[in-house]
Amino acid sequence: MSGGVHKETHNRATFAGDTAGDAYGTHRAIEPPGALPQPAWRLDNDFTRIFPGEVLLAVETLNIDAASFTQMEKEGDPATIVLRTVAERGKQHNPVTGSGGMLLGQVVQVAPRGRPPGEVLGPGDRVATLVSLSLTPLRIDRVRAVRPASAQMDVDGEAVLFASGAYARLPADLPERLALAALDVAGAAPQVARLVKPGAVVVILGAGGKSGILCAAEARRRGGPGACIVGLEASPRAADELRALGLCDAVVAADARDPVAVRTVVLGATGGREADVTFSCVNVTDAELGAILATRDRGVVYFFAMSTSFTKAALGAEGVGKDVDLFIGNGYARGHADHTLTMLRDMPAIRALFEKRYG
Amino acid sequence: MSGGVHKETHNRATFAGDTAGDAYGTHRAIEPPGALPQPAWRLDNDFTRIFPGEVLLAVETLNIDAASFTQMEKEGDPATIVLRTVAERGKQHNPVTGSGGMLLGQVVQVAPRGRPPGEVLGPGDRVATLVSLSLTPLRIDRVRAVRPASAQMDVDGEAVLFASGAYARLPADLPERLALAALDVAGAAPQVARLVKPGAVVVILGAGGKSGILCAAEARRRGGPGACIVGLEASPRAADELRALGLCDAVVAADARDPVAVRTVVLGATGGREADVTFSCVNVTDAELGAILATRDRGVVYFFAMSTSFTKAALGAEGVGKDVDLFIGNGYARGHADHTLTMLRDMPAIRALFEKRYG
Repeated sequence: MSGGVHKETHNRATFAGDTAGDAYGTHRAIEPPGALPQPAWRLDNDFTRIFPGEVLLAVETLNIDAASFTQMEKEGDPATIVLRTVAERGKQHNPVTGSGGMLLGQVVQVAPRGRPPGEVLGPGDRVATLVSLSLTPLRIDRVRAVRPASAQMDVDGEAVLFASGAYARLPADLPERLALAALDVAGAAPQVARLVKPGAVVVILGAGGKSGILCAAEARRRGGPGACIVGLEASPRAADELRALGLCDAVVAADARDPVAVRTVVLGATGGREADVTFSCVNVTDAELGAILATRDRGVVYFFAMSTSFTKAALGAEGVGKDVDLFIGNGYARGHADHTLTMLRDMPAIRALFEKRYG
Repeated sequence: MSGGVHKETHNRATFAGDTAGDAYGTHRAIEPPGALPQPAWRLDNDFTRIFPGEVLLAVETLNIDAASFTQMEKEGDPATIVLRTVAERGKQHNPVTGSGGMLLGQVVQVAPRGRPPGEVLGPGDRVATLVSLSLTPLRIDRVRAVRPASAQMDVDGEAVLFASGAYARLPADLPERLALAALDVAGAAPQVARLVKPGAVVVILGAGGKSGILCAAEARRRGGPGACIVGLEASPRAADELRALGLCDAVVAADARDPVAVRTVVLGATGGREADVTFSCVNVTDAELGAILATRDRGVVYFFAMSTSFTKAALGAEGVGKDVDLFIGNGYARGHADHTLTMLRDMPAIRALFEKRYG
């Protein structure tokens, strides 16, 4: 349990209202000055003052991006590495993977100017940020707990959300950690809903993971009973859990980094049909070609995996002469938070599995 | 002048017909063995024998990927670096940018088995490869000339094309170097043709470069007189040349790495309208956010630039809350070579400019 945050321990910041602050947060970039906060190397995390448009949050839990957490576990102790990164950069922006995550916190203070008109947000409200930690000014005072299974850390600290930064109020009817885990991949299911047509052949790499399961559920809902949904999952345990959900026509095992093996198991499961749409939700590198080779000409390959390489995907498709549309997964889609939380309410088996894993 | 290649100087290879050879070239991967040739670190460039499906080429000219050539010019002498890379990796696969290019050569030998049925290709035919050098086994014996303006190098050497590898026969009615330069970006215009609708607002970053000009021409053709086409070009000379072509409604200057500046000049040129489709054809890093900020909600951002970062694009869009479709540029599209060569024939002003620059 993250415990309650005591608002009174967070000092009220001075409002730097006479200083320029923009909706994107360029005023917080230190290195280089004036950059957008995501590409910037280092952000200003001095929260003794806040700028127009900002919301100051008392941070309770960080939900680290899965690719980033895996990388840090290989390098050493994730808590130590997060503290070092935040000290150096003023944000949890993994310099190796380039990815971040999101956070759960409580509103300490809202700038008196620059917030969206009509917004109702005030001190004490509990929110999850829907923008990456890689662009969120953050200070960590202490790491209180690390939960590797969910890639979450409970911390004491503060963060700032800019006027352009999306957030979700935590729902009253779902456990907070469950909501946080689902919101971290809120962009996945809405994109699936846009791309999967009734009767489609759909392949999901890393289908037993968090975003993979949401993709499979949405693909089944949109594709209907005539769709053929194939989930690839290398972990036997995750594969069994996925099978038990009854979303996929086939759950198969293959190393996503072996393109020929991926193609072979997919064709075996679909009766020789290539995918209309393939979603890559893996956390390993070198999975681009497997996704491409599994997909039909003029089909779609949608890469949610932050471990995806732009050049490997682009040159890989060209190299094998596949005329497919290659998408960079956009973590934001209109209404994505509501969409994903509603899935948890409508699909009790997924909710139960996520509570077991990430709750 | 590349001069004639003397077929008799290339020894006939032994046909390794009893050895497995697949259409994708996994049989040429040395490190790791059995990998696809694009992700492989090192390829087998021993051309004393060829495998089923292979075509052995006498290489005349390499057309290096623009992002790769720029990187090598910054590092040192491109010819030296290319020789080193090919010696180490058995292919011209720039280890920093991950990109390659393509080549022009003459067929020395066609494997007696494993080629596509009905193909008419024989010794002496002159072809340009339409697959990346990053997956093409290559041996270079000598660099004869380097032409920085077109990122081309004339070399003596040999290469192999796999059965899955696309190529184009060099057209009789166009100069070879012009054809090679255009074929290097053959994927660009066909993708524009798919995405630009009549009357669209189209933004092209790096519009004065090779792929940028082809994108602008195709956007004008598809978008019609009601379209608003804005070209961003930082080089004054390239901007003037682009203006003279009369393809764009506005040619504006901005540093593509400054997202706020890009957005400002775009909105200034369109009367405040965000782009329906933005194409990024730049050769610099950190141009992802400029393209995203210039584009409307539910619009499309298509990244042709090999210098694009997957995570910067994905997290950048999420960070500024832009619900846009982000595409990884696929260098291959059905019929792309014919499409692009036909543009040069139909558009004499572009042909003349390309001949001046790259001929």
